[in-house]
Amino acid sequence: MIQDSNIHEECGVFAIWGVPNAAELTYYGLHSLQHRGQEGCGIVAADDYGRLERIKGLGLVTEVFDNAKLASLKGNRAIGHVRYSTSGGGGLDNVQPFLFRHNSGDFALAHNGNIVNSAKLRKYLEDRGSLFQSTSDSEILAHLIKKDPTERHLPRIIPIMEAFNMLEGAFAFVIMTQRRIYAARDKYGLRPLSLGRIGDGYVVSSETCAFSVVGAEYIRDLEPGEVVTIDRHGIRSARYSEYQRHAMCAMEYIYFSRPDSDIEGVNVHAFRKATGRMLFEEAPADADIVVGVPDSSLSAAMGYAEASGLPYEMGLIKNKYIGRTFIQPSQELRDKGVKMKLSPVRSILEGKRVVLIDDSIVRGTTSRKIVTMLREAGATEVHVCFYGVDISTYEELLCAHKSIEEARKTIGADSLSFLSPDALFKAGNRSDLCLACFCGTYPTELYDSIENANKDGKF
Amino acid sequence: MIQDSNIHEECGVFAIWGVPNAAELTYYGLHSLQHRGQEGCGIVAADDYGRLERIKGLGLVTEVFDNAKLASLKGNRAIGHVRYSTSGGGGLDNVQPFLFRHNSGDFALAHNGNIVNSAKLRKYLEDRGSLFQSTSDSEILAHLIKKDPTERHLPRIIPIMEAFNMLEGAFAFVIMTQRRIYAARDKYGLRPLSLGRIGDGYVVSSETCAFSVVGAEYIRDLEPGEVVTIDRHGIRSARYSEYQRHAMCAMEYIYFSRPDSDIEGVNVHAFRKATGRMLFEEAPADADIVVGVPDSSLSAAMGYAEASGLPYEMGLIKNKYIGRTFIQPSQELRDKGVKMKLSPVRSILEGKRVVLIDDSIVRGTTSRKIVTMLREAGATEVHVCFYGVDISTYEELLCAHKSIEEARKTIGADSLSFLSPDALFKAGNRSDLCLACFCGTYPTELYDSIENANKDGKF
Amino acid sequence: MIQDSNIHEECGVFAIWGVPNAAELTYYGLHSLQHRGQEGCGIVAADDYGRLERIKGLGLVTEVFDNAKLASLKGNRAIGHVRYSTSGGGGLDNVQPFLFRHNSGDFALAHNGNIVNSAKLRKYLEDRGSLFQSTSDSEILAHLIKKDPTERHLPRIIPIMEAFNMLEGAFAFVIMTQRRIYAARDKYGLRPLSLGRIGDGYVVSSETCAFSVVGAEYIRDLEPGEVVTIDRHGIRSARYSEYQRHAMCAMEYIYFSRPDSDIEGVNVHAFRKATGRMLFEEAPADADIVVGVPDSSLSAAMGYAEASGLPYEMGLIKNKYIGRTFIQPSQELRDKGVKMKLSPVRSILEGKRVVLIDDSIVRGTTSRKIVTMLREAGATEVHVCFYGVDISTYEELLCAHKSIEEARKTIGADSLSFLSPDALFKAGNRSDLCLACFCGTYPTELYDSIENANKDGKF
Amino acid sequence: MIQDSNIHEECGVFAIWGVPNAAELTYYGLHSLQHRGQEGCGIVAADDYGRLERIKGLGLVTEVFDNAKLASLKGNRAIGHVRYSTSGGGGLDNVQPFLFRHNSGDFALAHNGNIVNSAKLRKYLEDRGSLFQSTSDSEILAHLIKKDPTERHLPRIIPIMEAFNMLEGAFAFVIMTQRRIYAARDKYGLRPLSLGRIGDGYVVSSETCAFSVVGAEYIRDLEPGEVVTIDRHGIRSARYSEYQRHAMCAMEYIYFSRPDSDIEGVNVHAFRKATGRMLFEEAPADADIVVGVPDSSLSAAMGYAEASGLPYEMGLIKNKYIGRTFIQPSQELRDKGVKMKLSPVRSILEGKRVVLIDDSIVRGTTSRKIVTMLREAGATEVHVCFYGVDISTYEELLCAHKSIEEARKTIGADSLSFLSPDALFKAGNRSDLCLACFCGTYPTELYDSIENANKDGKF
Repeated sequence: MIQDSNIHEECGVFAIWGVPNAAELTYYGLHSLQHRGQEGCGIVAADDYGRLERIKGLGLVTEVFDNAKLASLKGNRAIGHVRYSTSGGGGLDNVQPFLFRHNSGDFALAHNGNIVNSAKLRKYLEDRGSLFQSTSDSEILAHLIKKDPTERHLPRIIPIMEAFNMLEGAFAFVIMTQRRIYAARDKYGLRPLSLGRIGDGYVVSSETCAFSVVGAEYIRDLEPGEVVTIDRHGIRSARYSEYQRHAMCAMEYIYFSRPDSDIEGVNVHAFRKATGRMLFEEAPADADIVVGVPDSSLSAAMGYAEASGLPYEMGLIKNKYIGRTFIQPSQELRDKGVKMKLSPVRSILEGKRVVLIDDSIVRGTTSRKIVTMLREAGATEVHVCFYGVDISTYEELLCAHKSIEEARKTIGADSLSFLSPDALFKAGNRSDLCLACFCGTYPTELYDSIENANKDGKF
Repeated sequence: MIQDSNIHEECGVFAIWGVPNAAELTYYGLHSLQHRGQEGCGIVAADDYGRLERIKGLGLVTEVFDNAKLASLKGNRAIGHVRYSTSGGGGLDNVQPFLFRHNSGDFALAHNGNIVNSAKLRKYLEDRGSLFQSTSDSEILAHLIKKDPTERHLPRIIPIMEAFNMLEGAFAFVIMTQRRIYAARDKYGLRPLSLGRIGDGYVVSSETCAFSVVGAEYIRDLEPGEVVTIDRHGIRSARYSEYQRHAMCAMEYIYFSRPDSDIEGVNVHAFRKATGRMLFEEAPADADIVVGVPDSSLSAAMGYAEASGLPYEMGLIKNKYIGRTFIQPSQELRDKGVKMKLSPVRSILEGKRVVLIDDSIVRGTTSRKIVTMLREAGATEVHVCFYGVDISTYEELLCAHKSIEEARKTIGADSLSFLSPDALFKAGNRSDLCLACFCGTYPTELYDSIENANKDGKF
Repeated sequence: MIQDSNIHEECGVFAIWGVPNAAELTYYGLHSLQHRGQEGCGIVAADDYGRLERIKGLGLVTEVFDNAKLASLKGNRAIGHVRYSTSGGGGLDNVQPFLFRHNSGDFALAHNGNIVNSAKLRKYLEDRGSLFQSTSDSEILAHLIKKDPTERHLPRIIPIMEAFNMLEGAFAFVIMTQRRIYAARDKYGLRPLSLGRIGDGYVVSSETCAFSVVGAEYIRDLEPGEVVTIDRHGIRSARYSEYQRHAMCAMEYIYFSRPDSDIEGVNVHAFRKATGRMLFEEAPADADIVVGVPDSSLSAAMGYAEASGLPYEMGLIKNKYIGRTFIQPSQELRDKGVKMKLSPVRSILEGKRVVLIDDSIVRGTTSRKIVTMLREAGATEVHVCFYGVDISTYEELLCAHKSIEEARKTIGADSLSFLSPDALFKAGNRSDLCLACFCGTYPTELYDSIENANKDGKF
Repeated sequence: MIQDSNIHEECGVFAIWGVPNAAELTYYGLHSLQHRGQEGCGIVAADDYGRLERIKGLGLVTEVFDNAKLASLKGNRAIGHVRYSTSGGGGLDNVQPFLFRHNSGDFALAHNGNIVNSAKLRKYLEDRGSLFQSTSDSEILAHLIKKDPTERHLPRIIPIMEAFNMLEGAFAFVIMTQRRIYAARDKYGLRPLSLGRIGDGYVVSSETCAFSVVGAEYIRDLEPGEVVTIDRHGIRSARYSEYQRHAMCAMEYIYFSRPDSDIEGVNVHAFRKATGRMLFEEAPADADIVVGVPDSSLSAAMGYAEASGLPYEMGLIKNKYIGRTFIQPSQELRDKGVKMKLSPVRSILEGKRVVLIDDSIVRGTTSRKIVTMLREAGATEVHVCFYGVDISTYEELLCAHKSIEEARKTIGADSLSFLSPDALFKAGNRSDLCLACFCGTYPTELYDSIENANKDGKF
């Protein structure tokens, strides 16, 4: 339950090549990635003449698309995007894919991730005459690709690879030109991107859960620093960077991904369940029942229950019908006890000592509310366990300058524990996860400001 | 997963008296009852002058209401309804609450249940000059109440109680007149209805989960055959029938209700979990993992897992963003493997012997699809267990003229078992559940036809 | 420009029998009657099995219907309605056609007009057990038709004719049963209704303008007191009343109808133009230009211009894009000069003495605003001429207790004149128009109150 | 009635500076310019901190904006645009204003007109690395302004003026930066743009009709080649070009503008009426009535009627409720006589010799349909008069290689006449109108192709 955080801009990208009804399949693909972003979405399709058409809008895929719109997107290839609702906003202008009209051929792109040197790159490009129409860092890649028109006679992939090399940060990109689709991951391997086969064609997706939905077969994950080209000749792989690391963002396992997705060979549900088991090993609580905060923390709670022998119970229910058009209760009503999203279950909680499993503490506000809610519903003790380890870096975060004991008091728990990084690595059976969001050690420089960019004035 | 059945018309009713923003609270109450009906919904509010205003429409509460519409419903009392999508349809005309304009005072009503003598009553009323504007059996009550204008000088509750006495079947009704709210349950106790306190006022709901959402406190369930009157003098109880039985519909526990609701003192999640435990006792399968069909069967699967010691796994994922505006995949796409609603998780299922827990078999079509899906995703064995006991009555149902072995072959399972009625009673710690949907023994005559009504020609 | 009046509830009805795509043609028919009502609209269609389906909603026909909804209305007969926005409101519940479900066969009806003894009839019906679901007087007819179930073995038209005989007031009704369409006018001939031929079928419409739109041929107007039956045997005429009068509402010619419609043989544009000519004869003003208030008064202004030799000018422009979703300017903006609907044209008005032609004065508020607007745009004199004669009856109307001189001062005109009733009769070449709205002499009792109905307690 | 032509891309622009509720006033301004474009519209508003926010969408202003969206556009300045539906399409991407995000300050622009050297300019810019996100020629100006980042320390207006000088064609632009609004017309004076005063601020509009709607006072038209700067210091004028001509597009008077607008001192209605008078002088027809094709040709028909002494009649009625959501009748229904948009009035036309006044013939298809419609409604003769002069240039146009006699036969008229250019000049009391659309002599090169641009490869 980390929705009060915006350190991440997580989105979902999807691409499909070489099958009829490409836009329709993209619709179903994006639908299965909807949990990665509900603010807006879009699809660009290309027909046999290389004409790119786009539909995009604010809202869920079921809100943005209807039959008529989907039918207007013709052709056997398409790319799509679901966008996470961030505080930065930007509204419709920032909804992807971005679509560019160029005399050398139109192209479109969609991006999941954060470009950390975006301010510098943007200034560099604007100083050369580039003009941006969004506040999204994803638009930068397009301008980088087209920045040097003398490169137009080179093979097309060269400027694309050069552009990738200029980006610092976390990304998974899909790019569609009139004749090709390109897919690439950052060289640190921070964001997931998988490749599948569908009929005689190919599919690329942020998560593998989309593969089973569209009837595709998983081939492999893209490699860090790899760019895959798909066209009528089939599939080709290239590396735009010598550097390579597998620092998959731990939050993908912990929070963002759907439990039925596999990330680099590890199933998300299985990962979470393992963290739950290890939470019990590291911090066994003397309690009666185990409760997970839905939806992300249910798997971990099951794992804790299995390891501890305590019953796993649905002590918190999440209302699944909350969408864009939901009318938020006023402060007055919330003060009077109107609860949204999460409801505690008195008949389950009453008189019980509860182990509460959640993914991560951020500012602690949400955790405090949940603990209070459980106590009001009759829980006699609440032991809070985060399988998303300790966050010890950011000033704005609860634990920034507090000990665990201080944090425990703040959220009002009877005990508080965080999973150790080692256990987290063990859960994934890999020691190379990026824990930057938790411990502040990034494989790449994170917050880059326009001030810095202006200071040196060059890229 | 019984959505291919329509033997039940399950809906949700909600009423609130004596608090400001009554319509707004009704919105949140209906929102928490949304799982009971997604076809349409409506709210009628009454202001201090007894003026009743209504907003209703097709779709979810978040689709039908916006801020402006909600603000137009003024006053400190309201009733609301969410309607289940049934094959009968009827569209907007059948969406409740029904609102009647009468010189003795306008009134509105909302109903959950089935009136089994509706054809007879309808003919009886039409023969007296009544005119119906919907195909819903719920409209009958209103005509019954007003059928005899000589009764206008009696206390208002008399004709209402007489009307309830003429109804055979399952019902929970809320009625709002200019000065009062009435709430009543059928004398068999087939449908749930609970009473709560909120501020200085009262709230009535099909399920108790709505109470915690709106900040109300549970008082008690209404009794079978009881009618509760709420007005400025407070609350009064009366019995419209001497007869009383507690034959709560087993499907309320098994399928319809939200796990955080308590029905007549028994928590739904706890009930389901107990059925899961007993399923294992009655039919232990030699398997590797336990998988529940989301959402209704997750609790039972947990219970089975706990009892068996087998791990409970998320082998099936349900897409939670499917709503009214979702574009269903064409048959062609479905044949090519496009899956909606349920996705199997290959990395969990592959090579595993699976115990699949579901609520009830109906025609078997859905069960066969799910079993096939699990096998395609790598399950080596699939043992299907229904905690919703055997269905042995209806011709249209799979098991009607088949042995369990025939049924097993039809759905393609390695083994098939149904929970015994005794175990179901034990799960609820009560022996008075109505199993009519399963065994065909009804506390009240069920299917009544217009032919019969015409034959004897009178009520 | 009489929109600040609500003495009339003018609507449009349409019916079609015996042609494919009946609902689609009804859509186009209603579209051409849209000027008669913009609050809401609906269509009921019947298929070959006599199944009646309805779509209705608030808004214009282009807002309520889309391709999918229209396609769902199958069959070769249909009736439709457009509803005028009245202060009474009632929202969706009052939008017609009304649709009734009955064991003797479903039926639907749509109505244009006012039933003046509605309060009495309603009480009479409610005292017999009838239950109303709208506040519309149109619903009464249905209950009257079905009030006596002993009549079920009589030919179907008998109860319908009896019901018409109980109604006092102005009406044009279309009724669709499973096998027939009935159309009828009140015995005073107050509301128009015309009959046409289309292919092998028939069409009925409030105005003839709909005939040319759907490709139908005008046959004749229905007679006062006539009911026409259309079924597979063709067309039959009957009289439900001996009494007959041709007191067509003058407002139909003056304000409501589209200029291309013919009412009882007289074209509306031609009528209005003639009134304009006679306005000049009766009240010649010494002026420079003639300006009509759009849209209804343009024809009369042309007539005045022709007769006077003065140029007809577009001194006022009406914005045609104002619809249901238009955001009304705040009072603050209106005070600052934001004008909607009507814009004066300075370059035409400046320095000119203007003859302003309008249809009718009601409370005078609108007229005062228009005169002020013309002066601010440079008009040196404004001579106001109403071709809708003097209104001298209602207290709430400007002229109620005022002389014409007082009225002139109130609206700020340099001169004020009303067309004489004789001239109005001459314009229509008929002396039998109903001027009740203007002079208070009704062919039927107009405002009937619930008090009166209660006093005598019977019909 | 020239909607079957697309030689023009006519739109409407609006800007407002220095008053509260700027976006709201822009809404009303655009609403009064709605006749200039119904495909889409947008508003960009700037608050006191220079933050630019945009709402845009497909459809009418009443469809794109609601109260919440309008309220989100804060600040005391704004620009807006309504877009004409052209065959080129482009959908949402081409809807203006365009909004650019730049480190030197965000800016937005809106454009009415055609840039004839757009292909060359676009190639020139793309060769320098510019990246376009629409197919609209209006986007070019923004890239021209920002193409040379070395100019950033010059006064801001310099690059804007340089950019205007590179554009060939017809334009009226409004540009909003964080601190200023710029407005400019092309040096030929082909497109109108007027300046007004509102409170302590200013307003700029394609047509003066918007001034009276928002309560503004007309100051003057912008001069050809002039750019006006509005900021907190007030208003300043500059000339970006020495060259100046007043070649106002004749179509603005003939077809595009609202009759209550004044263009360079000449009222549109008065202009059209004068053309009608001169049509009679040049081509007097022996007829009974004069009929104009609504809406644009009504004024000219009135002029013809006045000059000829023949009565002006409403022989054709246009349905005003046709909008974006109108369901077009199928070919089958149209073949069966279903008529949209225009209805002939039989009772007016029957037995009459008709003079039909229309604005311009293009391919003749529409004219032939209207003539046929009039004859079917009983007209004995139809004499067609176009006040939009002869079109003699384009191959695709009817008259291209045909004599007037051939054209007459094609459209089926009894006689056919075109107003002479001299008479058109006389009607406007000016001899400098651009008749390019009619005679092919353009003040600026018109159709420029990408081939040509590619051939010489440079600007």
